[in-house]
Amino acid sequence: MVKLVALYRKPADMDVFDRHYFDVHIPLIKKTPGLRKIEITKITGAPIGETKFHVMAEMYYDSVDAMNAGNASPEGRAAAKDLMTFAGDAVTLFFGEVTE
Amino acid sequence: MVKLVALYRKPADMDVFDRHYFDVHIPLIKKTPGLRKIEITKITGAPIGETKFHVMAEMYYDSVDAMNAGNASPEGRAAAKDLMTFAGDAVTLFFGEVTE
Repeated sequence: MVKLVALYRKPADMDVFDRHYFDVHIPLIKKTPGLRKIEITKITGAPIGETKFHVMAEMYYDSVDAMNAGNASPEGRAAAKDLMTFAGDAVTLFFGEVTE
Repeated sequence: MVKLVALYRKPADMDVFDRHYFDVHIPLIKKTPGLRKIEITKITGAPIGETKFHVMAEMYYDSVDAMNAGNASPEGRAAAKDLMTFAGDAVTLFFGEVTE
């Protein structure tokens, strides 16, 4: 499996962020063709010191090709466009192979 | 479920890192009491631009208390000590609640 990870830094207003994120963005993400599973983690702390992160979403696909096709689909493009409107400067995106 | 996330930036020497990580560190992590599951992702890219990250490990526990107890155990302390010897400056640690 391949997963695309979206890691969000703490927003200025968590309530405003969470409302858009959970009510608008995640439903858009779930429409992406080829998406096998999504896991969302509300980040609450760090073992040492503080964390600058607020939430992490992991989107699982069968392969890099399936992920790329999902991102390039109309649904994927709509989700990406939405992301840029509310969290373009707060998100870090990367992907990789789940090895175990 | 709660998970502890260890996100590693790209090391200077990936082969040296990977040998220690997979042959020494992960076996130590797997001895931690209360660990329910581990998921390891080899990071290979980003949708836009490059990524500075190399690997991500996610350690699942039943609760924050179980995670803290695992980290405070002799096995958890041995794994943390090992982490500091080979990747203390390359790792970002945070934890959170898996909501879905």
